[in-house]
Amino acid sequence: MASVEAAAIHAAVAAQRDFAAGLFDRLRQDGLDAPGVTRDPYGAGEQCAHASVADAAQSLGLALERDAAANLYMTRPGRDRAAKRVVIGSHLDSVPHGGNFDGAAGVVAGLTALAALARLGLTPACDTTVMGIRAEESIWFQVSYIGSRGALGTLPEGTLDVRRIDTGRTLADHIAECGGDPRALRAGRRFLQPHDLRAYLELHIEQAPSLVEAGRPVAICTGIPGNFRYPDARIEGSHDHVGLPRRFRRDAAMAGAEFAMAIDRLWAEHDARGIPMAATIGRFHTDPASHGLTIVPGVFHFSLDVRAYDEAVLAELDQAVDGIIAGIEQSRGVRFMRGTKARAAVGPVDPGIRAALTAGAMALGIPTIDLGSPASHDAAAFAACGVPMGMIFVRNANGSHNPHEAMTLDDFLAGTAVLTRWLADTLD
Amino acid sequence: MASVEAAAIHAAVAAQRDFAAGLFDRLRQDGLDAPGVTRDPYGAGEQCAHASVADAAQSLGLALERDAAANLYMTRPGRDRAAKRVVIGSHLDSVPHGGNFDGAAGVVAGLTALAALARLGLTPACDTTVMGIRAEESIWFQVSYIGSRGALGTLPEGTLDVRRIDTGRTLADHIAECGGDPRALRAGRRFLQPHDLRAYLELHIEQAPSLVEAGRPVAICTGIPGNFRYPDARIEGSHDHVGLPRRFRRDAAMAGAEFAMAIDRLWAEHDARGIPMAATIGRFHTDPASHGLTIVPGVFHFSLDVRAYDEAVLAELDQAVDGIIAGIEQSRGVRFMRGTKARAAVGPVDPGIRAALTAGAMALGIPTIDLGSPASHDAAAFAACGVPMGMIFVRNANGSHNPHEAMTLDDFLAGTAVLTRWLADTLD
Repeated sequence: MASVEAAAIHAAVAAQRDFAAGLFDRLRQDGLDAPGVTRDPYGAGEQCAHASVADAAQSLGLALERDAAANLYMTRPGRDRAAKRVVIGSHLDSVPHGGNFDGAAGVVAGLTALAALARLGLTPACDTTVMGIRAEESIWFQVSYIGSRGALGTLPEGTLDVRRIDTGRTLADHIAECGGDPRALRAGRRFLQPHDLRAYLELHIEQAPSLVEAGRPVAICTGIPGNFRYPDARIEGSHDHVGLPRRFRRDAAMAGAEFAMAIDRLWAEHDARGIPMAATIGRFHTDPASHGLTIVPGVFHFSLDVRAYDEAVLAELDQAVDGIIAGIEQSRGVRFMRGTKARAAVGPVDPGIRAALTAGAMALGIPTIDLGSPASHDAAAFAACGVPMGMIFVRNANGSHNPHEAMTLDDFLAGTAVLTRWLADTLD
Repeated sequence: MASVEAAAIHAAVAAQRDFAAGLFDRLRQDGLDAPGVTRDPYGAGEQCAHASVADAAQSLGLALERDAAANLYMTRPGRDRAAKRVVIGSHLDSVPHGGNFDGAAGVVAGLTALAALARLGLTPACDTTVMGIRAEESIWFQVSYIGSRGALGTLPEGTLDVRRIDTGRTLADHIAECGGDPRALRAGRRFLQPHDLRAYLELHIEQAPSLVEAGRPVAICTGIPGNFRYPDARIEGSHDHVGLPRRFRRDAAMAGAEFAMAIDRLWAEHDARGIPMAATIGRFHTDPASHGLTIVPGVFHFSLDVRAYDEAVLAELDQAVDGIIAGIEQSRGVRFMRGTKARAAVGPVDPGIRAALTAGAMALGIPTIDLGSPASHDAAAFAACGVPMGMIFVRNANGSHNPHEAMTLDDFLAGTAVLTRWLADTLD
């Protein structure tokens, strides 16, 4: 199949324009919850999206399956049914009042690519499965990758007992209600065996404006960041009178400010050296119980999330944070109580897949950039199991997790063409 | 009386050692509310202190009066009853679980000084009045200088209707219950006419450890700071995804951190140039309703209190803060919403009184330092009315507003000797 011409790929994908536009429209109408859409995981919103996607898949003649976590599998059989299969997936849930594309675009792209392959008269060597993944957005259950890790058998212990923040009901209850089988999940049953998977591919809207800035429609993912986090850290200094001279103060908030600026500087230096990373101090606050206009803050709270795409960079940043803390403790007479430290490993992109996606885009005349994923994605759950993984990002203005997401259908089809090219080139 | 020798002053003050120690002990027992003492203003604690002080004054043969705000006046008649009088005052209330000396020391010092003058056989030229002032601590009614401003007729409008935060009852009710006359206060009656006052003097424990650091028992006040305040300011940026690259962020908390560090630097520079000031960012926080580990903060709240002893310095600092804000708004794409701005004028110390106190201490062999008051005091309410004002600070470890205040009786008597010397030298 390596001989399929660029023009043929473009034409086959373009022919699915109405299919894709129609499915996006239906998903938007299904999820409408002004402003934006709400597809609550294991709830009415996500159920509705799964039903619509299943309908669309059936119209393409794909075979449907569901697993214990109620993920949806839509498969085009390959020439060799026993060969390792390819999964093209993304999630169908959304944040409350989110946009229509975050997640869903990857599922629509998978279906569109399979339709384009069919139009080209190509039957891949192996089964090709589009996966509608459950419950990726961690805002609801405060756990990430529930659907994909449920499929792979890697859910953290206790996950089934967590409660959705709005309903107060357990994940197990929600799953059962949506046709899943929480008992099978508890027993460790896994629908996907990593060694049976040839690759996992995911198309996703970009959640930052790098592509808008670069003026390109598509980015090829270079990696999903690993991180270290202090979700609940504290600085202890001394509560004092507003008039206390500077030299006597042990101001916990000033120590926090110095910490934040040092982190910001560290990031600026890495940016200048072209080493991608991100640092976020999402919670950053004096104590509401004791702070006041005329009190020198004696205690200060913060969270820290530091992410990078290279374990060595992450280790170096970890050490740098230690050094910053030690310096501030000494100069300001305060103590940092870091609390729990959480870590997540870097989600490496398969170099072969990345190179093939880049080359395929070039062959299609679609200009791309390389882009480290700013966010986490289900793809990381597959990479963590050793499944070769690749991601395609599509240009999107106004960020994600809001009703103002803006991906054009042209850009979507460009990203889908890259995906189709890869399937056609690789699965021959 | 200018001819009184240093040794005679020391001896006359030392002779009151038991009087002072006894009164401090009684006040401590009256106010005991472990840990520390509580003398709630216009409540049982303050009433008790007023009763004890009145008893002590009567034992010294002083004449007692009370005004509509229930302040206590304890007067030794002068040779010319029609001459402008001198008031030596401080407050008798405390913060909850505070120390025994913050406030009360100034009243005990006044009584002790009058007793010493009597022992020296001196009758000052004018009436000398020790004033037990009500309700100085703003934590209770959220208004400062209630007693002194009630006496001077300068209470802000509406003050009588504010409620004590613990009882929920109005200041007017509390005043009436303690024998005062809120209707007279509402009618604008003033007990003290500024033009009838020759001087106001106040002795107070130091609320910072400058004297401990300097190894001196007494400081002569150089001024009570004026301030400008933003009690409730806000920075508006953009809530964004944790993975958003640095160049796209409009992080309100980072803007807050940069602001705090710029204020801190401004202060350090003033310290280095020997220009006294203080800056406190007492509230400094992300929004509890929207902050989180993986969200770039889009809004940030802070308060700012900047104080200095010179109106020109204050004006320059005000302008510097404007410049800092403008710079951060530009570089970080955020907006500062400053909210209400409050100001208080510098409370100038009378240069003649300050020079006389310093010279008197030197003549007594008591080493002093010059010290800008870190805190606000009733003395500022007198200075604001044009009354010549001076203050004496006494060494005190462990700060104030806590049960661990530590002033020695020797240091207290040294400060009281400086006060006695001034009365003896000036009122001849």
